[in-house]
Amino acid sequence: MRYEKILPDIIKKNGNKILMLVLDGIGGFPDPGTGRTELETARKPHLDRLAEEGSCGTMTPVLRGITPGSGPGHIALFGYDPIDVQIGRGTLECLGIGIDLGYEDIAIRGNFADIDENGIVTDRRAGRISTEENRRIVSIISKNIREISGVKIDVQTVKEHRCAITLKGEGLNPAVSENDPQKEGLPLKPLNALDPLSEKTASVLREFEKKVMETLKGSDSRAKGLLLRGISKLPTIPTFSEKYKLNAVCIAAYPMYKGLSKIMGMEIADAGETVDDEFRTLRETYEKYDFFFLHIKKTDSYGEDGNFAAKVKMIEDIDSRLWQLRKMDFSCIAVTGDHSTPSMMKGHSWHPVPLIVKSPNSIPDKVRRFTERECSAGILGNIYSRELMYLLLACSLKLDKFGA
Amino acid sequence: MRYEKILPDIIKKNGNKILMLVLDGIGGFPDPGTGRTELETARKPHLDRLAEEGSCGTMTPVLRGITPGSGPGHIALFGYDPIDVQIGRGTLECLGIGIDLGYEDIAIRGNFADIDENGIVTDRRAGRISTEENRRIVSIISKNIREISGVKIDVQTVKEHRCAITLKGEGLNPAVSENDPQKEGLPLKPLNALDPLSEKTASVLREFEKKVMETLKGSDSRAKGLLLRGISKLPTIPTFSEKYKLNAVCIAAYPMYKGLSKIMGMEIADAGETVDDEFRTLRETYEKYDFFFLHIKKTDSYGEDGNFAAKVKMIEDIDSRLWQLRKMDFSCIAVTGDHSTPSMMKGHSWHPVPLIVKSPNSIPDKVRRFTERECSAGILGNIYSRELMYLLLACSLKLDKFGA
Repeated sequence: MRYEKILPDIIKKNGNKILMLVLDGIGGFPDPGTGRTELETARKPHLDRLAEEGSCGTMTPVLRGITPGSGPGHIALFGYDPIDVQIGRGTLECLGIGIDLGYEDIAIRGNFADIDENGIVTDRRAGRISTEENRRIVSIISKNIREISGVKIDVQTVKEHRCAITLKGEGLNPAVSENDPQKEGLPLKPLNALDPLSEKTASVLREFEKKVMETLKGSDSRAKGLLLRGISKLPTIPTFSEKYKLNAVCIAAYPMYKGLSKIMGMEIADAGETVDDEFRTLRETYEKYDFFFLHIKKTDSYGEDGNFAAKVKMIEDIDSRLWQLRKMDFSCIAVTGDHSTPSMMKGHSWHPVPLIVKSPNSIPDKVRRFTERECSAGILGNIYSRELMYLLLACSLKLDKFGA
Repeated sequence: MRYEKILPDIIKKNGNKILMLVLDGIGGFPDPGTGRTELETARKPHLDRLAEEGSCGTMTPVLRGITPGSGPGHIALFGYDPIDVQIGRGTLECLGIGIDLGYEDIAIRGNFADIDENGIVTDRRAGRISTEENRRIVSIISKNIREISGVKIDVQTVKEHRCAITLKGEGLNPAVSENDPQKEGLPLKPLNALDPLSEKTASVLREFEKKVMETLKGSDSRAKGLLLRGISKLPTIPTFSEKYKLNAVCIAAYPMYKGLSKIMGMEIADAGETVDDEFRTLRETYEKYDFFFLHIKKTDSYGEDGNFAAKVKMIEDIDSRLWQLRKMDFSCIAVTGDHSTPSMMKGHSWHPVPLIVKSPNSIPDKVRRFTERECSAGILGNIYSRELMYLLLACSLKLDKFGA
């Protein structure tokens, strides 16, 4: 990113505190009945007051038209280029269930699959076995396969046919081709090293693949083997402390967001489970940090479920807690999302997300309500999510002048 | 920049004349008492009429959140990438006091410093000596040190503890590390060549550093030596004539802007001292050129001083002269700034600057007033300053179709 060419010369530390409040999947889409989005439907006086006081705009998470996953959505919010810094699917799967990945570990997403006596993959999801059945199989595998050639292997249930696999050991590198044939009726593909540094990993995985099939041979489950996908490592990128001179904390209830934040070197607060827990954690950690990433998941979850009314209710619930922010002295508060999750679409979408930047150094505009459409007329215009951090640093007076 | 890949194929010369009117530091910030910025406070019927007739928008000088110095601010206005084309601090210091730098000369910013008998820098600004004392010391140095190894050395007072140093001679290259230890209580750092081409410059500067200390040894001033910083040369970039086929003139009262314009190969008009002088110069040179860079400094100066009322008054003053533009036939007039200098912040800021592009070929929008907030709703949206030149060329019909 172009910022990186000049940032080291202009970034400075001061005591100002930044809050980035991320309402996951906050952006919505109009209900055909009312013509109003979730944000346009919710009664949310505190969010609207923040919009009135701050500068508003919208953000495109990655590129126009691109629907981001949680990984790219957050990588961008944290000021990194989501196309340059990609997080492997295996890594995300492990982070998502709270596995404490080290920078040398290999992370893999596993699908239990049905494989016939000729080695042909007959069902890539083993008939979508239950999570319970998954747990039973994982415990059998874990008992039988713990280590191969000095590399420790850990398998954890995710849900249904999915599991997360980590390899811990020396000299591991993730450039190994996947064994998933992608279509049913085809044999497993070979696990080949794609570079010389990854030979050891490939050989361990081939052995692992074989042992899993031997272990599951006689079982009554349709799971007869494992498709190994998204073989990857944590990316090594400059931390928040290195890049921004920020002492940052992640306040999130869901494991994946804690995991993502750890990549940026944030400290991970014990934030409990509920929105109330998260706000209490914010108050309790307020003195200790100068950057707070406060992540609220439920807006996305209800969007994914297609539950318009529940997403509206969740927005109102969050809103009713925002008065607490008035008791703290942030130099800059950003309220936004990592992407849109319109209930009408039951999933993430590419639509820009609304944004508030409230600071004594941001110019208030005409926007009076925190909605997709009102914010699109705000003074910040439409920016990319990866630019947001630099606006927050500017509003917190943490950036010196560039050039004389 | 991406433009450079296609510009040579589509740029053409015609008789149309472009005026770029730069009100330095024009962007402001609301006064907490009134809620209005300087531009929102000023009575400026001519500027508002231009806004009404033209296309409006806002410009981000470098990148969002980045506060530019005058160098990057203008480099961008002139259509170059301010991150790729950086002007050294020494070069800017020399340009700022009107030194006629050649492309082979080395330009350095000097700070007079107090240095004790053990070579420790005890005050990096020599107690911030007066400009008068600076002049006295510079005259002593100039008398004693004129040439080292065939390289001519010139020292000029800037103000207080600051001076500008130029080296003229053969085989000079600026890749030399600075001797400024950055902190007090530390010894001078060595002036080392950072590449083989800069060995001669480094050796001349080491000798110069030594001779300055010898010369100042017995003096009654706290200035006992020189910190040499921003060792640089003029960048060599395509001129306006080469890049845009424009015959350009700079009409500016302040030396730095004349110096910056010279880098782009503009002719430098003798523009006098006042805004009236500048407008007269515009009228007098009107027939001779097809691009006019008209720079007005005072808006920035009052912003830097934190003098809201004086900045408002200056905007009104400038406005009262704009009727003169109606007597000339520009194919395109741009009115904007190089960056914001809000009086409330007493310095440059990162906030986008308002922009008018008035031309028979620009589409008028709903904007009725030349202010930060109204222009942010203009039809041009928010663009980067480095894109402006291409809009002006387009409105002046100087760009052929790209591709068939």
